[in-house]
Amino acid sequence: MNTMEKLQALRGEMRKKNLSAYIVPTEDFHCSEYVGDYFKAREYLSGFTGSAGTLLVMQDRAALWTDGRYFLQAEEQLSGSGIELMKSGQPGVPTLSEFLGEHLKKGAVVGFDGRTVTGAFVEDIKEKTAAKQVTFYGKRDLVDRVWEERPSMSAEPVWELEISYAGLSREDKIAKVRQEMEKERADALLVTALDETAWLLNLRGGDVKNTPVFLAYMFITKRRALLCAQKSAFSETICNELAKAGVTLLPYESIEDMVASLPAGQRILVDEKRVSYRLLNVISKGVEKINKPSPIALLKAVKTEREIAHMRSVHVKDGVAVTRFIYWLKSHVGTEEITEIGAASRLEAFRAEREGYLGPSFDPIMAYGPHGAIVHYEATPETDVVMQPKSFCLADTGGHYSEGTTDVTRTIVLGELTAREKRAYTLVLKGHLRLGAAKFLEGVCGQNLDVLARQPLWEEGLDYNHGTGHGVGYLLSVHEGPQNFRWRMGGESACVPLEEGMVLSNEPGLYLAGQFGIRHENLVLVRKGEKTNYGQFMYLEPLTMVPFDKDAIEVSLMTAQEIGLLNDYHAKVYETLSPYFTGEELAWLGEATAAI
Amino acid sequence: MNTMEKLQALRGEMRKKNLSAYIVPTEDFHCSEYVGDYFKAREYLSGFTGSAGTLLVMQDRAALWTDGRYFLQAEEQLSGSGIELMKSGQPGVPTLSEFLGEHLKKGAVVGFDGRTVTGAFVEDIKEKTAAKQVTFYGKRDLVDRVWEERPSMSAEPVWELEISYAGLSREDKIAKVRQEMEKERADALLVTALDETAWLLNLRGGDVKNTPVFLAYMFITKRRALLCAQKSAFSETICNELAKAGVTLLPYESIEDMVASLPAGQRILVDEKRVSYRLLNVISKGVEKINKPSPIALLKAVKTEREIAHMRSVHVKDGVAVTRFIYWLKSHVGTEEITEIGAASRLEAFRAEREGYLGPSFDPIMAYGPHGAIVHYEATPETDVVMQPKSFCLADTGGHYSEGTTDVTRTIVLGELTAREKRAYTLVLKGHLRLGAAKFLEGVCGQNLDVLARQPLWEEGLDYNHGTGHGVGYLLSVHEGPQNFRWRMGGESACVPLEEGMVLSNEPGLYLAGQFGIRHENLVLVRKGEKTNYGQFMYLEPLTMVPFDKDAIEVSLMTAQEIGLLNDYHAKVYETLSPYFTGEELAWLGEATAAI
Repeated sequence: MNTMEKLQALRGEMRKKNLSAYIVPTEDFHCSEYVGDYFKAREYLSGFTGSAGTLLVMQDRAALWTDGRYFLQAEEQLSGSGIELMKSGQPGVPTLSEFLGEHLKKGAVVGFDGRTVTGAFVEDIKEKTAAKQVTFYGKRDLVDRVWEERPSMSAEPVWELEISYAGLSREDKIAKVRQEMEKERADALLVTALDETAWLLNLRGGDVKNTPVFLAYMFITKRRALLCAQKSAFSETICNELAKAGVTLLPYESIEDMVASLPAGQRILVDEKRVSYRLLNVISKGVEKINKPSPIALLKAVKTEREIAHMRSVHVKDGVAVTRFIYWLKSHVGTEEITEIGAASRLEAFRAEREGYLGPSFDPIMAYGPHGAIVHYEATPETDVVMQPKSFCLADTGGHYSEGTTDVTRTIVLGELTAREKRAYTLVLKGHLRLGAAKFLEGVCGQNLDVLARQPLWEEGLDYNHGTGHGVGYLLSVHEGPQNFRWRMGGESACVPLEEGMVLSNEPGLYLAGQFGIRHENLVLVRKGEKTNYGQFMYLEPLTMVPFDKDAIEVSLMTAQEIGLLNDYHAKVYETLSPYFTGEELAWLGEATAAI
Repeated sequence: MNTMEKLQALRGEMRKKNLSAYIVPTEDFHCSEYVGDYFKAREYLSGFTGSAGTLLVMQDRAALWTDGRYFLQAEEQLSGSGIELMKSGQPGVPTLSEFLGEHLKKGAVVGFDGRTVTGAFVEDIKEKTAAKQVTFYGKRDLVDRVWEERPSMSAEPVWELEISYAGLSREDKIAKVRQEMEKERADALLVTALDETAWLLNLRGGDVKNTPVFLAYMFITKRRALLCAQKSAFSETICNELAKAGVTLLPYESIEDMVASLPAGQRILVDEKRVSYRLLNVISKGVEKINKPSPIALLKAVKTEREIAHMRSVHVKDGVAVTRFIYWLKSHVGTEEITEIGAASRLEAFRAEREGYLGPSFDPIMAYGPHGAIVHYEATPETDVVMQPKSFCLADTGGHYSEGTTDVTRTIVLGELTAREKRAYTLVLKGHLRLGAAKFLEGVCGQNLDVLARQPLWEEGLDYNHGTGHGVGYLLSVHEGPQNFRWRMGGESACVPLEEGMVLSNEPGLYLAGQFGIRHENLVLVRKGEKTNYGQFMYLEPLTMVPFDKDAIEVSLMTAQEIGLLNDYHAKVYETLSPYFTGEELAWLGEATAAI
């Protein structure tokens, strides 16, 4: 079937249920950042392959909402499909909820697979369509009825993350979660985020690309810890270990019955921004909902001593791989034909040489010249280019190792640069260094500090349209909350104090469309510093150990303090990495990290 | 009666109503920062005169909560009264709600004058005493029955603020408020803050110290604008003008009936953090409460073009007065006996010479040497000292003029300084200059920028225990919201984007107990700067025009950029003020503002 035929088939199913509209989002049942093939219903129906987008199908029209990263791609992929492109955030473009508020008839029924949308999503529609007295139908996955040869749901083997890596047993973690539940006087906690379940149980899996998690829900009460997952993914050993820890393994689908079984009068902790509409709706009427973020997010964000020790050492490994790659790229570009995809494979190979390497933590961004200005660029055979000995290669990549997860961006000088390129590179570096050197009082949030990274750009009327930093999981999602470096308040960016043991990225950038892009990214660890009469001070320890390319620095733009910060960092990089290098490479590392 | 006798009399009244506890806070019926004498019930009963404190009377004990500013004073004033001092915020000290949760018996009744506590205050007690099933009695002011010779309620004449000052008519303002009500689908708005009513009606009064407002409530519906106030304070002319604008004047006490008259099914906008318990409780059961800040706060914070023009010119006047004072103080200290109180009177006299001066906008802080380390120091005959030709005089003062309100702090060098004093002075100045020079995107809040002022201190493990800046009213309260410069999120510090036309103080400090205090304060106006591809940029224009004392600057600690900022500011101060100076004073101004 082509797209139009697929939509017609879906409309047929909609008519049977008397639905005026059907919504197909990108999400799996767990609000995951990446989703398995089974969940790619929006992609199957519309043909649009971007990582974010929501399809709306009505009897007489269909539309797809996506964001600025994907306008060009979506225009191409939707062409001829009859699906209108809705450019989210552009002036005059309604949101999906607003669109429904305008176009639905009174009393219309809106459908979706209630497992793929959150309670908050439906609430927003309800609010924007208030005058239309709309009702919702979320019980059936109608796409399933028209999807020929749908891939099966992934159920890769679940494996144990040894306590020597995790630092805290699953029993201890469950006890901590119950303590947090007690603070909220909650009788039950519903865990739907896959990385939260994986963290809590010290288990990892392979059901989601780039993220070693497995499909599962947890339902935790004062006495019981129920794991609803695909039994075939669990070995007998792991089943026994779980049983020992008081965890009961139940079928994946049984989560609805478990949630429904909570008796009236009890209190359940659920995050309506993250939990699916359907699960929220099976909660009994008499149960009180405490709508707050899951306490596991914060527990998981504060790394254990073990995790910290491993993350420090994994960054030495990763630093060796990335630094070797930079040397290889700089010394071969122009003499060898190196494409973006080729360079990404080469870096992957350097990482694969390291012990304990498990795979990439996200799709690599290896962007030459103007491609660097596309924030989430991913080279495809159609876009791939051969790098020339001039301008920049922006390499934003990361890996999972048994000892943790990395995420690093370096903007690598391939040859001659324009004054503008140097100036941009240096301004972004100033911001990166200033944020990295922040010393601040306990209680301060990322929102308080973000300006330090942006200030050198803002002073010149420049900016970058993304957060300055995100939390990073331990062999989990490379993007995790709740902490971050952003300036915007509210919405998804909760203001969470930076606690000792949190890991974040520090990655300011600058993007000149059609010209080049700059980004400098280290992961940093939040640490306690001195305690004075004025309070407990905190600082950021850089975990990433890779030189910044000095060939693009316009020294005259930097203050003495900033030069000092760069030289100190480079001295530490040399001290850390030099034992792993010899000969020419070592000589180059010495130069690359020498004081300016 | 002495304190013990007064408490016994109150306990007698409490027994008649069967109350286990009675709470007497500092507030008037409007959550005002300063209160009239009629409202000083806590002071009358306890003898404690500080500006913040809450008295709890039980049958067998009494306790008073106050904050760190007043620990010493409260200890002295409560001595022998039998009232226990509760040092708020100290480790192990319960809050009033926690104390009640611990000490009340099951089913106890807690009393207070329900007009003097907010809904949120009572909610907090309810939560902390949940297990005790406490009920509340807020109908009677029991203190009134034991207060001999209670001052009468102030009813000073209300006067018109001409449109040439306000820039917007009361009709237009009421229309704007109704627009905001519509956005919330509110049928009614209850206005209890005195400065909000004064702003809305372009009226001023004299019922509250340091703040030209009058006792009043407003109740605004789609059609009616009811002003509940003391009729004797209004001239016939003003009554007629109000009637013309559709405003109905009713007795002050009738607000309860008006609020109670709102029919079920309607929606009322009330801020439960600011509106009194009693008013919240007269709202009919079927009325829906929208618990949000009053929209007037934000409307009032964004100054009109007229107000801005006047605030610029009033700062020239005020700058002349303060600069003249600084010259006088520096050139007379040591040769004349100048005390703190004497200096404050002298500055008041310099201000009084200026046309349109109405009086101080807050109690002046004129603090010599170690007194400068007491953040809210107010010299009394007991504490007053003669200034010596060494160390600093910290002068934090402000005035009301027909053209607006000022608030300025200078730390004035009286003679020889220690290296430590110079270093502290310079670090604080660096922070002040950095925040003042901030360029930022539209949408940024004060919480995003506060770090710029604190960073030079935080880098050395230092800090100041107050916000960096507050909003300033136009001939209203010198402290107003909702915008501010703070780093803490939530609570009273809402994150409000900085909008063009807002006025804030920029006042970092450093306080070394027993030694000296530093504070540098300018008022700044938020303005739109350039609009680039990256968005609308904003910057801060300094309104205050008074030189910073260069005699304390340790130039080696300042960056070239900071020196440039100071020199630019001083050049502007000279250009602005020099036309008002002659002879010796002019020569001194030239030196005081010369580039470093």
